Amino acid sequence: MSELARPFHSGDGVARPRVVIVGAGFGGLRAALALGHLPVDVTVVDRRNHHTFQPLLYQVALAVLSPADIAQPIRTILSRQTNTEVLMDEVTSIDVQERTVSLASSAQLSYDYLVIATGATHSYFGKNEWAPFAPGLKSIEDALEIRRRVLLAFELAERQMQEHGWHPPLNFVVIGGGPTGVELAGAISDIAKLYMRHDFRHIDPSKARVLLIDNGPRVLAAYPEDLSAKAERTLFHLGVEVHTKSHVSNVGPGWVEANDQRIEAAVILWAAGVQASPLGKMIGAPTDKRGCVIVDNNLNPPGLPEVFILGDLAHFEQDGHQVPGVAQPAMQMGDHIGKTIEADFALKRRPAFRYFDKGDMATIGRMAAVAKVEWPFKAHLSGFAAWVTWIAVHIFFLIGFRNRISVFSQWVWTYFTFTRGARLITGDQRLPGWQDQVEAGPSQQEDARTAGVR
Amino acid sequence: MSELARPFHSGDGVARPRVVIVGAGFGGLRAALALGHLPVDVTVVDRRNHHTFQPLLYQVALAVLSPADIAQPIRTILSRQTNTEVLMDEVTSIDVQERTVSLASSAQLSYDYLVIATGATHSYFGKNEWAPFAPGLKSIEDALEIRRRVLLAFELAERQMQEHGWHPPLNFVVIGGGPTGVELAGAISDIAKLYMRHDFRHIDPSKARVLLIDNGPRVLAAYPEDLSAKAERTLFHLGVEVHTKSHVSNVGPGWVEANDQRIEAAVILWAAGVQASPLGKMIGAPTDKRGCVIVDNNLNPPGLPEVFILGDLAHFEQDGHQVPGVAQPAMQMGDHIGKTIEADFALKRRPAFRYFDKGDMATIGRMAAVAKVEWPFKAHLSGFAAWVTWIAVHIFFLIGFRNRISVFSQWVWTYFTFTRGARLITGDQRLPGWQDQVEAGPSQQEDARTAGVR
Repeated sequence: MSELARPFHSGDGVARPRVVIVGAGFGGLRAALALGHLPVDVTVVDRRNHHTFQPLLYQVALAVLSPADIAQPIRTILSRQTNTEVLMDEVTSIDVQERTVSLASSAQLSYDYLVIATGATHSYFGKNEWAPFAPGLKSIEDALEIRRRVLLAFELAERQMQEHGWHPPLNFVVIGGGPTGVELAGAISDIAKLYMRHDFRHIDPSKARVLLIDNGPRVLAAYPEDLSAKAERTLFHLGVEVHTKSHVSNVGPGWVEANDQRIEAAVILWAAGVQASPLGKMIGAPTDKRGCVIVDNNLNPPGLPEVFILGDLAHFEQDGHQVPGVAQPAMQMGDHIGKTIEADFALKRRPAFRYFDKGDMATIGRMAAVAKVEWPFKAHLSGFAAWVTWIAVHIFFLIGFRNRISVFSQWVWTYFTFTRGARLITGDQRLPGWQDQVEAGPSQQEDARTAGVR
Repeated sequence: MSELARPFHSGDGVARPRVVIVGAGFGGLRAALALGHLPVDVTVVDRRNHHTFQPLLYQVALAVLSPADIAQPIRTILSRQTNTEVLMDEVTSIDVQERTVSLASSAQLSYDYLVIATGATHSYFGKNEWAPFAPGLKSIEDALEIRRRVLLAFELAERQMQEHGWHPPLNFVVIGGGPTGVELAGAISDIAKLYMRHDFRHIDPSKARVLLIDNGPRVLAAYPEDLSAKAERTLFHLGVEVHTKSHVSNVGPGWVEANDQRIEAAVILWAAGVQASPLGKMIGAPTDKRGCVIVDNNLNPPGLPEVFILGDLAHFEQDGHQVPGVAQPAMQMGDHIGKTIEADFALKRRPAFRYFDKGDMATIGRMAAVAKVEWPFKAHLSGFAAWVTWIAVHIFFLIGFRNRISVFSQWVWTYFTFTRGARLITGDQRLPGWQDQVEAGPSQQEDARTAGVR
């Protein structure tokens, strides 16, 4: 007998099981694709109409790529899969007894299997009031907001310099030294030092300061120490000031307080913490302190064999370590759902999930990256070799031929011409705190400019 | 003696004249480029950081192209032109006596020559309260808002149909039958009937109704009658319902009143009227009823030989007709500024501006267009031939090699795969009036659905 505790809901006489998948990130989408050939009816619910290739979001934020290069409508990806429908809607509650999911539109979906893959969002460690001053990077909207702020800072500085011969310090502070923080800091340094060289008349964009602040002793804490050290060295060469062991105690409009020192900042970005989507708590299962649902090796929370938790939302331990919240395990978990439900159909024992780690990588600006390769061979790569590997892997995993061609040709263009194709400021023309700094005047600013971080 | 009435402002002893150009659309940008080789100092002021290729904005709105495909940073376009600086700022007032321009940042620019090329915006004929219900198409932000509404309407209908087996009528109403209205209506019809065929499970997107409403007796009123007739025939074949002689008396959330009949609409778009930028009025010169500044054949308002008005903001008559507010005359006027200032330097008589009309064209959905060709031969083209001509002309006039390659490859991709690359919904997930229609229920809606427009 399979481990599926109860027979399928079949009140209407139809025995075809209904699978509801919430969230169409890497995990949810792969789960949907894995179910395409099975005799099930799949409903994918996502509050966005598009799947986002999150590893390249920072390139949308730093004006290399356009949103459409890394995002695709979920229903287009799944359009040929006739057993699958897509609803753009938001889950408001889940009843695991009745096996129903309620949606914001007031609709209710009943399920035989439920897959929750709603991932994680930024965590300000309880200081949500910092959010407007230090946006994080999780969605296309976030990326466009970061793009707006970074590009606008240079425009406002040029304007201020032209008028008064002085501008508030052009400091960019990135809080959090994980892969996203390192990628953002490197990319900001690149755009300031390389890609804007000929564009301004009054300011010198290459004089902008980029500060990367992390609480811990080293950047890329999840990577081996030698790669962290290489990343810090590369960042140093790019001109990024790395401040480890720096505790951020407060964030306001245009400033950060770290180790009791105040740093004026034109733009502050948040890459420090993530917390699980609130959907994990809705099913009443045990979670870890970040809100991730603790799952067994069938990816089920205790006592709910028809509910699967995938990707960043799952707390899955293997060999004594928690599997990290990145794309690879999410995709493998998604694939695994197909095998599990297939086993249920065959009345076989469900296979146990095991994460197969091929490695991990992060870019650091133009032409450099670090990579911990686990498969097909074990190696620590850095510099140009790691960067080329990074490009190959990311092009390969992008969904859609058009996106691959488009992203690759944008990269080639950017690499050879030193221009960025998507340097557009849209929306509002203000920066939090900028006007305060302008009004405070140059003398005070000069002090701030020379003050160190620690 | 030149027609320049007064000597250059040279209080600081520098004789190099200062040219301030306000607005970096087709006219302003071409004026800046025309001044690149002259011994003048040029300041280009625009409230956006990018030049937008407006003729392709509707393709951003209908998810074919990304914003970055048709927009480029103004300072990048002008970066190699060393006598030119770019300020992202907004003009708040102009003093033609003192020859100064005041900016929103509180800066002031003094000028020897002033070029005003700030174009036009939508006009709701005094009914600005209609704006939130019927957005127009002038900027990248507008295009993204239209994209959001059009794509969201299909998503909400699918959701509603899935839940209740019924949805409010999927009507798209475009008000205004000029080139923009015709292009929008054709493109919406295309996306509904061709590009979403396999994507939905509960609704049939091809059943969406597209209505094009115009006050006058025919669409494309500025074109010859035979081309208007061909355009209407093409629209008919695309399934667009063309309602000419329809007077719009009111617009609200989710409905339009035309010829005293109420049409329910999921999305309403405004392409009916334009009004000149308010900067025309700031210089105190005579304007026409749309606010365009009446200029002589040196492009000067009366009595201000150092002020030039270009593009859509200029009311320039030639052979008894007003030159139309499209890209071609704006570009030619921009070029003309270079010749005029060069003549002033040589103490020669300023050349008179004369618009050289090469023709005009509008696309009507996939594979059809109408074109009135004036040069190099005279012809009225329609259908496929006009469409190919349209493509060639638009690729040619796009600024930047990257953009040309990118747009052309997106078109080839879209043409052959019947997919649209930029089908992303970003931002808010509501449509004005949709929820009211859902609450009103199906019966009333059925009535509305069967009711004609006239």
